[in-house]
Amino acid sequence: MLRQEVSLDGKDVPYLYGVDVTEELVGALADLAVTADLVLLVTDREVTVHAEPVARGLAKAVRVAVFTVDAGEQRKTLSLVEDIVEFAIRQGASRSTVVAAMGGGMVGNVAGLAAGLLFRGIRLVHLPTTPIAAFDSVLSVKQAVNLSGGKNLCGTYHAPSLIACDLRWLTSVPHGQMLTGLAEMAKNVLAVVPTRRHALEQALGRLADEPAAALLELLDIGCTAKAPYLRTDPRERREALVFEYGHTTGHALEFVSQGRINHGEAIAWGMLVAAEISHTLGHLDRGDLALHHQVVGRLRLPPAAAGPGGLDRDRIRAVLARDNKRGYLPCAPDEVPMVLLESVGRVVTGDHGCPLVPVPMDLAMSVLDTVVGAAPGATLVRAGSGLERLGTV
Amino acid sequence: MLRQEVSLDGKDVPYLYGVDVTEELVGALADLAVTADLVLLVTDREVTVHAEPVARGLAKAVRVAVFTVDAGEQRKTLSLVEDIVEFAIRQGASRSTVVAAMGGGMVGNVAGLAAGLLFRGIRLVHLPTTPIAAFDSVLSVKQAVNLSGGKNLCGTYHAPSLIACDLRWLTSVPHGQMLTGLAEMAKNVLAVVPTRRHALEQALGRLADEPAAALLELLDIGCTAKAPYLRTDPRERREALVFEYGHTTGHALEFVSQGRINHGEAIAWGMLVAAEISHTLGHLDRGDLALHHQVVGRLRLPPAAAGPGGLDRDRIRAVLARDNKRGYLPCAPDEVPMVLLESVGRVVTGDHGCPLVPVPMDLAMSVLDTVVGAAPGATLVRAGSGLERLGTV
Repeated sequence: MLRQEVSLDGKDVPYLYGVDVTEELVGALADLAVTADLVLLVTDREVTVHAEPVARGLAKAVRVAVFTVDAGEQRKTLSLVEDIVEFAIRQGASRSTVVAAMGGGMVGNVAGLAAGLLFRGIRLVHLPTTPIAAFDSVLSVKQAVNLSGGKNLCGTYHAPSLIACDLRWLTSVPHGQMLTGLAEMAKNVLAVVPTRRHALEQALGRLADEPAAALLELLDIGCTAKAPYLRTDPRERREALVFEYGHTTGHALEFVSQGRINHGEAIAWGMLVAAEISHTLGHLDRGDLALHHQVVGRLRLPPAAAGPGGLDRDRIRAVLARDNKRGYLPCAPDEVPMVLLESVGRVVTGDHGCPLVPVPMDLAMSVLDTVVGAAPGATLVRAGSGLERLGTV
Repeated sequence: MLRQEVSLDGKDVPYLYGVDVTEELVGALADLAVTADLVLLVTDREVTVHAEPVARGLAKAVRVAVFTVDAGEQRKTLSLVEDIVEFAIRQGASRSTVVAAMGGGMVGNVAGLAAGLLFRGIRLVHLPTTPIAAFDSVLSVKQAVNLSGGKNLCGTYHAPSLIACDLRWLTSVPHGQMLTGLAEMAKNVLAVVPTRRHALEQALGRLADEPAAALLELLDIGCTAKAPYLRTDPRERREALVFEYGHTTGHALEFVSQGRINHGEAIAWGMLVAAEISHTLGHLDRGDLALHHQVVGRLRLPPAAAGPGGLDRDRIRAVLARDNKRGYLPCAPDEVPMVLLESVGRVVTGDHGCPLVPVPMDLAMSVLDTVVGAAPGATLVRAGSGLERLGTV
């Protein structure tokens, strides 16, 4: 079992991980829960096969109650959080209770928000079972749910006390979820750590045959990119906004498609749009633009026609107009705040010291049209890249 | 217009107040909102007469949207908070939006939690219109709603940017709401600042004829008692738990009666119970116990029969077993954590450095029976104490 310390909201949180280490992770969780009257294990129906051994092992040390959710972006609501907290209280939860979130990013968010709200904050443990959760979303104290008007508009900050991941859990996820994690890693490489580009490409290449080594590498890319920012900007309101790269049009595509375009796919399209806008505005050069297409091309996206091609432009525009980065900087109603790149690994810093630039809405929409319209399937889909599904570790 | 600085979550928050100062307060609020795209005024239908001039004055400077709630403890839910945040987003709220909570403690809590959750925290202004809100609940960063299982089980910490109160707003509140504020002030005197006992009694005596002077005095007692604790323990998890005095059985009475016994009345009964338990366990002496009855007697409580006399004991016991102070200290299932007094103004400090003591549930229940059963109307109700309703300033 390996261990890293991650700075989250000013405290060093242990991240324990490895391959086939569930038993050791359960031991660490039981140690943490020695002062708890109850562990509330919030989990996703899809990962029952991994959650059962955890619940069984924990139950030897502490009372365990399991709340199972049907994961899915459209169920990431305050109502579901209310169901979780009501269930917790019925099960006798107190201030000493530990909430363990076992699943992907959605489970981490709803359980994380529930833990943040119960008694105004009780202990939280993340047990990520998807790449996006393991490499990216657990490395944050931001917890949020969606409102009718947009993604992640309602939430709080709540740091976990422990993160623990058996990389074995990640090897059975469907391609769409795998893609999500990989798209965030592509974002990290393009926006923050371009020196890790070859490591990323190598990991992508090894995923099918040597998934253990590849997943360890990907986790390392995630931690390397995020760790310094989490230390200096734990609430991700200033320099850490760089991790919103690709997330402006990305979130709009994901939201308007009601999740048909998954998060990773949406972010991948969003990065191509952001790169093209960066280029149009005289920042990113052609070479770095081509690099975007090369890196994103490794992600094996569905073709545009199956992706954002058919979405309602007016709804996308309306969601962009409510983007949750609005308000970090003065932004006219016909502008949308975006992270843009000067070059790979270097953001355009706006007037207000944060990496956000107000982009004219018409420009954002026309570039979106161009990118989605122009992107030939051949550019974005590489047949036989070996990522279709993962083998076993 | 007067001004105090109150330390809330580590920042000095201006508290502006006075009599007939609405126009100046609106000016201060407009100054704060100069960077806001929207002020969301959350208010209680009962205070429309005070809210309308505020909304009208503010609308000259900034876009204003009004969300009116029917106040009431039973509507202090996460669902109502969801309605508020959904409304805010439909109105175009962004990170720069200001939420203004105008009403009593319930409005402050639901609007405060909504402000804490929108975009993970946007600016909040408190415009308290009841004594409990003005003298007590705005002097806290705790925001919470109730769950089916108990009061204030779900919430977060969120500090206001400004507190502003025209004491004129307080003079039209019904006696029940006035009582609530006065009970918390009685608590402050008994548990924290016994030297202010005569000031409290004088203010109570002047309320009918000189309400302006009396309300200024009461506000001062609230600030004097709480300010040092808010500075050293802003999240009220250690020494500031003293302000939970009377709140253990008090909350249970309020919750089980579904608000028929209002907060102030419940806290008053709760203090008599806590004092009797303190005495039974060898702490508080007879003189200080009598002082409790004297001070609480000034509050003109309804007689026991109209109060907690008829409530279901089993339900009270069940609510006590889930009290939200549980978990601050090891507490057996048949014990309930309570603030007890050594003498007036001095808490019993438990083994864990916080002012909570595990009290056997059977003792708490039998003292509750005794206090409620034994308290003759004559002890608790002083006819003609002049508090029945307030005159005009």
